[in-house]
This record gives sequence, structure tokens and C-alpha cells, in this order.
Amino acid sequence: MRRPLFRLTQKRVLPLWQRESRTTLAPGALRQLHSCSALVYRKHGHHYDTVRMEEMSLPALGQHSVRLRMLAAPVNPADINMLQGTYPILPVFPAVGGNEGVGEVVEVGRKVTSLRPGDWAIPWDAGFGTWRTEAVCEADDLLQVSKDIPLLGAATIGVNPCTAYRMLQDFVTLKPGATVMQNGSNSAVGQAVIQIAAVLGVKTINIIRDRPNRQELEEELKSMGADFVITEEELQCLGLDNVIQELPKPILGLNCVGGRSGGLVLSSLCDGATLVTYGGMAKKPLQIPAKSLIFKNITLQGFWMTQWKRNNSKDVTQLQTMVTSVCDLVKSGQLQPPHCVQVPFHHYSQALQATIQAHQRKHVLLM
Amino acid sequence: MRRPLFRLTQKRVLPLWQRESRTTLAPGALRQLHSCSALVYRKHGHHYDTVRMEEMSLPALGQHSVRLRMLAAPVNPADINMLQGTYPILPVFPAVGGNEGVGEVVEVGRKVTSLRPGDWAIPWDAGFGTWRTEAVCEADDLLQVSKDIPLLGAATIGVNPCTAYRMLQDFVTLKPGATVMQNGSNSAVGQAVIQIAAVLGVKTINIIRDRPNRQELEEELKSMGADFVITEEELQCLGLDNVIQELPKPILGLNCVGGRSGGLVLSSLCDGATLVTYGGMAKKPLQIPAKSLIFKNITLQGFWMTQWKRNNSKDVTQLQTMVTSVCDLVKSGQLQPPHCVQVPFHHYSQALQATIQAHQRKHVLLM
Repeated sequence: MRRPLFRLTQKRVLPLWQRESRTTLAPGALRQLHSCSALVYRKHGHHYDTVRMEEMSLPALGQHSVRLRMLAAPVNPADINMLQGTYPILPVFPAVGGNEGVGEVVEVGRKVTSLRPGDWAIPWDAGFGTWRTEAVCEADDLLQVSKDIPLLGAATIGVNPCTAYRMLQDFVTLKPGATVMQNGSNSAVGQAVIQIAAVLGVKTINIIRDRPNRQELEEELKSMGADFVITEEELQCLGLDNVIQELPKPILGLNCVGGRSGGLVLSSLCDGATLVTYGGMAKKPLQIPAKSLIFKNITLQGFWMTQWKRNNSKDVTQLQTMVTSVCDLVKSGQLQPPHCVQVPFHHYSQALQATIQAHQRKHVLLM
Repeated sequence: MRRPLFRLTQKRVLPLWQRESRTTLAPGALRQLHSCSALVYRKHGHHYDTVRMEEMSLPALGQHSVRLRMLAAPVNPADINMLQGTYPILPVFPAVGGNEGVGEVVEVGRKVTSLRPGDWAIPWDAGFGTWRTEAVCEADDLLQVSKDIPLLGAATIGVNPCTAYRMLQDFVTLKPGATVMQNGSNSAVGQAVIQIAAVLGVKTINIIRDRPNRQELEEELKSMGADFVITEEELQCLGLDNVIQELPKPILGLNCVGGRSGGLVLSSLCDGATLVTYGGMAKKPLQIPAKSLIFKNITLQGFWMTQWKRNNSKDVTQLQTMVTSVCDLVKSGQLQPPHCVQVPFHHYSQALQATIQAHQRKHVLLM
């Protein structure tokens, strides 16, 4: 698998169509055969109106490359942060927005064996620029996804469900009957954690924020396999021991909120547990008492799917195995795709605006 | 090595002389042959006057046990916390204070091969009750220390220098030229870190609090091998990059302070580094931004020497190797014993009082 050109810590990355290709062009290939519509931005800004739909010509197909017709691409909070210039990966301008999405392979170069026309594929790395109708890229930039799953499931499989999958695998050994606690349980990752944990026979304690439709949400999460659903306020007030005696104390905590909520998860964990932070929705730092680290021997780690993929970018089998496993869970009905709102491609600003605001559902552009 | 009877999280531990012995007593051994003076407490309290000197009879020497004449025992902050009832290990009353110290073996049981009369020995586990003139214990409770090192060095070797030794070994691979950053650099552990790191060829950046004798302290730490000494205020104000360009960013941070100071260490570390917390002197929680965990991939762990020893209590070779290695460093002059104030045993309340107050020097009881 090709070594990504990206550098972290706000180094900018060349957009796909400006990167050097190792592909030898076929004779006559310099002629631009195809063009696409893309959501392009040329500067960072705090508003969705930095993005404009533009027509863009595509490079010719090389021997190792693939032409992909994008079918659906979500608008994720990370995409918005990238527009704003606050994400650790920034593109070189002009840039196409969008890091996630699924496309159908239309055409492949002569030496491509991993994909065939008609296959569905997703980019494995961030920075692909998925908000576009078509792309030409190296076959190595893509992973195949099953066509037996819903389109919106395929479009949203590469980041959140994979994050849940890895966090349940890579930090502690979870035997059936072990307990995991998480906050932000209604997030896309949170819902995937509930479902994948249930498949593993692992119990989940799921913290949510109090809300008018609390009962309804609790039932929904339980229908996915959540063992306990509890509000931050209840946990803060009563303490875990007074609410849930049925389960062993959590050996793994998953934190996407931070601040007080992260501290609540931390203080509920068993001795020797691990707290994995993968988000900071509350925009407040985690407060860690020294004694939790010293006397309870809690380990704190972070998880970032993008970094994991880049660390494993030389092992395409590892990446493909993960995506295929998650696809299989969706196919078998054990993992439901997230709730999505479908937005026509040319109504993109509506999707961007909705993603900036508090939201329960993913907004997915349909090309 | 005998499995300790201690249980953590404020479970109480039987004092040495009430524990069941696996030793078969020799005929006539029921007669109490020896007695000792000990600093005994029968309740927890916030003042040093919970402790009284009492005469205590010693059990007879069993086949596997040892009679130890205590020579010197420090008064450590953890001992005070144990008196106060705020430490994670608490004794069953009546209890003898003191967790660390060195004694001379006076007499050994018939089946003891690890120690001989005249040897110096230290207890490997906390809760020994070292503030006493004599003790009878299992030979397995003790580790031998070299008689070629200063008495006060031997009395204080088992906790702080071993903590420094382990933290530099167990968390990240430190190649010569790598950088470690620590706060509380003038503490006993901090001074040991500086010296052991220098032996390893590892560079140290040492944070201290601003003080009137700052220059003098800086010179003292540098004479031990510190590469850089910097105040919290300077680091806070200028940032590491503007103060020290000569060294690679720290791959390991050691935190015994917490609060703002812990955050300063955290934010100075390189991507993928580990921050080890072994104290919380500031009594304020560490503030951890989610992005440090997620995008810088910093791992936070805790270290507690007592727990490490207990985790390794079945491998006496491992414990003895560590103590012998640290003794060797002292013997070769590469590791200086801490500054100590020698206090006669019967002036114990003076040592307790001085340890409660802010202090630069260890107060060591001489029996």
C-alpha cells in the first residue's frame, strides 16, 4: 500500500489530483477525458459558505488507477473542522471537502487486480475529498466494501463503526461478561460500540445526557443491545455502585465527551482499567486525579482512526479485514447503519449547516 | 516469596507480629525471648501525637524467620498519610509506623539461607512497621542490601531510588540521547531520576518551582547530571521550544505534582510519548486536553512502587536484582543518597512534625 503523502500536525496535504502518480500514462492519456462536480474550498472559514460547487477535470486513468463514481458521502464534524482549519490534517488549496464516502468503480487501469468495475469501494485514508461526483485515484487508495449492505451503511462504515470495532479490540482483552462503560452513547460510534459489544457478549453501561425523550432513547439503545443506560446526572448523583450492582466494574471506558463526563467514566472503572479517549465534545479537558493513575493503575490512551489506518497502511490485508468484518456485521443485521438524512449533492450547504448544529443524525450527500 | 496478606483500597493489614507464621516453632520457643521499643498507634489522627513509644515483646524465632535489629528508618510522607488514614494501605491496630528502613540481621532460623547474621536487610513490602528497635519476621520479607553503602543510603533505598529506576526502565525504551522531562525535580525521586538518567546517557529537563535559592538549586541538580533546569513559570511563559532547542522533545514525562505543572509536562512531550504520574503534591487533578490523547497519542499511566513490588512478589530474584543494581549505583558514586537529617529514635515526634511541614531533607530515625 502506498505510503501516504500526509504529514500530521497541520502540515498540508496535496489534493488527490495534484499528487504525483506512480502510474505510467497510456498513450494519448494526457487528454482529459472526464470531469466531475466537486465541493471545493480555497481558504479556511468558520462558515459553510467557504465551499463552492465547481466543475473539475479528472486526470487520465493510469495502469494502477481507478475511476470511481461517488455515490454517497457523509458530512462529518471532522470535515467541518477541516474546512475551518482546526483539524490536525489540512489540505493544500484548492481542496475538495469530505473524508468519507462510497463510490462505484467505473473503470480500472490495466494492472489493477484488487477491484473491478461495478465494485463498491471506500477510501481508506482521510483527505480523499469525497464530496465529488467522480474521482480518479490509485487502486491502493481504496478498500472494497460489500454491495450487500445498504448504500448509506457503506458510505459511513469506514470511520465510526471501525473506531468502535478497534477500540473494543485493541486496548484490553474483553472476555464475554466483561463490562465496558462509555459516554456519548447515542453518537454514531457509541451506537456501534453497543452493537459490537453485544456480539462479543460484552456488557455495556451507556451514559447519555438527560433530555426530554430520555425514555425513548433508552429503549432505542437497549433494542440495539445496551445493558444499562444512565444519565450523567444520575451517575454523578448516585455513583455507579448504587445504580448497577449486577455487573463487574468496567475494565474499559470509552470517552468522547471529556470534562465532567470523562471524569465520571474514569471514576467508575475497575482497578487496572483503561480509559480510551476518542473525542472531546464538551471542549473541556479531562480532570484526572493522581490517585486514579497511581493507586487504581488506570491507563489513559487516545484513539484516532485516521492514525491507526496510517500506522497500518503497509498492511492492506489488515485494513481490508477490518472493513470486511464490519461489513459482515452489517450484513448479518448485528450492526445497524446510523440514522441518516439524505441530502441531494447540490443541496450540500443544507447538510453542512445541519452538521454544524447539534444533531442526532448523519447528513449524507447523494451524488 | 510469600504472598502478602495486604489487600489494597483501605483494607487493613495485620501487623507483622499478629500474622500467622508458616514457621514451626522450636521446642521451648513459646517463651518470649526478646522485646523491642516501637512507635505504636491505635487510631488514625491528623497529628503526630497519635504515635507513642511502647515496649513490645517479640515472637520466638522460627526456622524460616530472622531477628532484625533496626538501624535507621526514614519518616516519609506516605508514613504520615498512613497514620492519618488517608493512604490506600491501612494497618490493623495496634500498628507500628514506618514502611522503610534498614536493619542488621542478628539471628536467623535454622532453615534460612538467604541471610546471615551481620547482613543488612530491608523489608520489600510496605506495612512492615520499621519504626522499632527490633523485629522478628520471615526471611522472605527481607531483601539484602550492601554494607558498602552509607547507612542512610541503605535506609532510604527501597522506595524513592527504586521508583526512579523502574520509571526509567518500564514505560518507554530510552536510548542514549533521548530526553526525559520531570517536575518536582528536587524531590528524592527527582534527584534519583537525574542521576540514573545520566548513567543511561539520557538527557533530563528538570522543572522546579521558583524560589529564592533557585540558582543554588540549579547548580546542585546540574552537579548531579541534570541537563536543563527550568522553573514552572519560565516554561509556562515561554514554552519549551523557546527555551530548549538542543534536545529532542521528551519521550517520557514524570509527574509527581499534578495540576498546572502536570499539564506543562504533558504539553511539552513529543507525539507518542508517555506521561507517568507517581505523585500528586499539588493536590489538584491533572488537566488533560482530549487532543493530546487523540492526536498526539500520549499515554498516561501511574506508578506505585508498592504495587510493583507486590505484582512481582513471587519473583524474589527480580526484587533483589533491582535493589542490588541500585546499591551498585550508590556504591560507585553515581547515585548519591538523599540529604538526610538524623533524628534519635526517642525524638521521633520531631521527625514526624518536620515531615508534615514542607521539607527538603528526609528525616531519618536512628534506633
